Amino acid sequence: MTLSFSLLSTAGSARRGRIETAHGTIETPVFMPVGTAATVKAMRPEDVASTGAQIILGNTYHLMLRPTAELIERHGGLHKFMNWPGPILTDSGGFQVMSLTELRKMTEEGVRFRSHIDGSYHMLTPERSIEIQHMLDATITMAFDECTPYPATHEQAADSMRLSMRWAKRSKDAFRAREGYGLFGIVQGSVFPDLREESAAALKDIGFEGYAIGGLAVGEGQAQMFEALGFTTPHLPQDKPRYLMGVGRPSDIVGAVARGIDMFDCVMPTRSGRTAQAFTREGELNLRNAKHADDPAPLDTGCSCPACRSYSRAYLRHLVKAEEILGMMLLTWHNLQFYQDLMTALREVIAAGDDLSGDPQAIVQRLLPPV
Amino acid sequence: MTLSFSLLSTAGSARRGRIETAHGTIETPVFMPVGTAATVKAMRPEDVASTGAQIILGNTYHLMLRPTAELIERHGGLHKFMNWPGPILTDSGGFQVMSLTELRKMTEEGVRFRSHIDGSYHMLTPERSIEIQHMLDATITMAFDECTPYPATHEQAADSMRLSMRWAKRSKDAFRAREGYGLFGIVQGSVFPDLREESAAALKDIGFEGYAIGGLAVGEGQAQMFEALGFTTPHLPQDKPRYLMGVGRPSDIVGAVARGIDMFDCVMPTRSGRTAQAFTREGELNLRNAKHADDPAPLDTGCSCPACRSYSRAYLRHLVKAEEILGMMLLTWHNLQFYQDLMTALREVIAAGDDLSGDPQAIVQRLLPPV
Repeated sequence: MTLSFSLLSTAGSARRGRIETAHGTIETPVFMPVGTAATVKAMRPEDVASTGAQIILGNTYHLMLRPTAELIERHGGLHKFMNWPGPILTDSGGFQVMSLTELRKMTEEGVRFRSHIDGSYHMLTPERSIEIQHMLDATITMAFDECTPYPATHEQAADSMRLSMRWAKRSKDAFRAREGYGLFGIVQGSVFPDLREESAAALKDIGFEGYAIGGLAVGEGQAQMFEALGFTTPHLPQDKPRYLMGVGRPSDIVGAVARGIDMFDCVMPTRSGRTAQAFTREGELNLRNAKHADDPAPLDTGCSCPACRSYSRAYLRHLVKAEEILGMMLLTWHNLQFYQDLMTALREVIAAGDDLSGDPQAIVQRLLPPV
Repeated sequence: MTLSFSLLSTAGSARRGRIETAHGTIETPVFMPVGTAATVKAMRPEDVASTGAQIILGNTYHLMLRPTAELIERHGGLHKFMNWPGPILTDSGGFQVMSLTELRKMTEEGVRFRSHIDGSYHMLTPERSIEIQHMLDATITMAFDECTPYPATHEQAADSMRLSMRWAKRSKDAFRAREGYGLFGIVQGSVFPDLREESAAALKDIGFEGYAIGGLAVGEGQAQMFEALGFTTPHLPQDKPRYLMGVGRPSDIVGAVARGIDMFDCVMPTRSGRTAQAFTREGELNLRNAKHADDPAPLDTGCSCPACRSYSRAYLRHLVKAEEILGMMLLTWHNLQFYQDLMTALREVIAAGDDLSGDPQAIVQRLLPPV
């Protein structure tokens, strides 16, 4: 059968769960590093796994354009192509085709657009997106949807959400179920409770292996995002995983876990690592800052990653200032380790009965205290 | 005492030797990866070591400007700062100050120049260069010299060489000998046999732990370089290591080893790795080439490095085309592995009595045959 989810324990709305897939087990709550172009940038996949990452994300939009899904399929699928044997979730391309392309035309059928790489014309439809994700051999396939722009009027949000629901049905019809694989639907509806409820109901009628929440973390702010989660998750099935797309900062993740979310992805740890930003138990650090220039301390005394084990802040800052690739490699590694350490701590405290109520930033500091 | 050299065996002019240093043993002939700015670009030092590298090179010019030798000394020296516990050779800065700076003034005293980073003024003299290398904690310190430009008249080459010999004496006087450390002199004299002989004699009079040959691989071509080695190495002591600076391609190394050289450094494997060029048992490959786009074969079937073990040429080409950092990481790793595999093979065949006579490119292919 398709992939399966077990809810192991709950604490308030927070959930400790497990997803069994064709490519391995995923303990939830889980953070998925982003591997847009068949690589988690500046990391070898073995090293991504060493941080505790259990599943990574691939981007349909990027991969369909380069090197193409057809090429990846000929080379045995994305797992083999990029040397990541574990689970992979691919997005549908819907978000990126709207955010990365200038010339595009959306119709009931789908979205016609020009490649940002070479200007060539392409069409993404629910059927084509599902076919691409099948060729990529995605463990978890996402339904094709429109990520409703923010802000949107109730009417705009309703129209957009209902289009996504018709596309969700077409995605389901196009999906070829396989043992240990699954298809997730995506709840839309912007910040409107009635639309989120309507969307969740529509998706449940279709039936998916998991339910994502889309259209958040698009500028509405943490408070409104948490509010939207509060009136959305009660309409989602208890016995399926829930995925908050594109989120987020550590405190976003903690607050969302407290509201019943199981899965996350975000470019923040990897992108920050390439731009000299580090997440640490002492807070976020900018390694360009001159105050680190002569600091012999490790980046994060409580961290076990190679960047923290073997180097000083002074050295890491030197690498950043000299624009050395090793600086990006080490800071990316550290940030991914920090995120995975946070997820490990979250899984432990939920299992112990902590409902994670309270200020999420304070909880981050409680879970990962300065040494 | 200072570092020591043992000549283990010879085959014709080729030498199999061993250098014992304060930071470990170096089996020769040896190739030293270049770690200009306190990092072998795009590599973790553990991974550099895993290729078989025994010693790396650091650049005095770059390090004195950023992060400064004083900072590195405060942080325990270059070994600790960059997490490379093994031997490190630092150049004197003489070559780079002439090749990288626009505004410079050379006098008997030394070279005054402006930083290519921030335009600040600096002075390098034999005494200052040796002091900087001491602060860096270089296992092998190089005497400060002028790399004679090519081509040069006999008079120009003689004047330049004799200045370098006076600087070599000042370098020796400034060097503080320590257990397991050493100072190398540098033979100059361009392509003139009498000047090379005079330079070697002058250096032997001063006395060094090793003898480098400078001023080659600067545009004279392989044939003339080999010819210059042929009339230079007979004037060097048999019982000290010989280092050909800035060389080279695999065939350059083979031909130089056949002519009695023990040590090499070159940016070629690392720089090529960052520009999609790979050294393989099937020859040099450009991974940008479209013919690799759909090739499921490993980069080099005979190679044990991660790039060759876990990925296809198609994947590596995809990384290169998408300008992914992982592409530079993997190709750099492979090229360093290829160079170290070549050195391992050279050490084995010399020990077995092979004098490496014949076409050096053919010998490369014999030592590292296609699988």
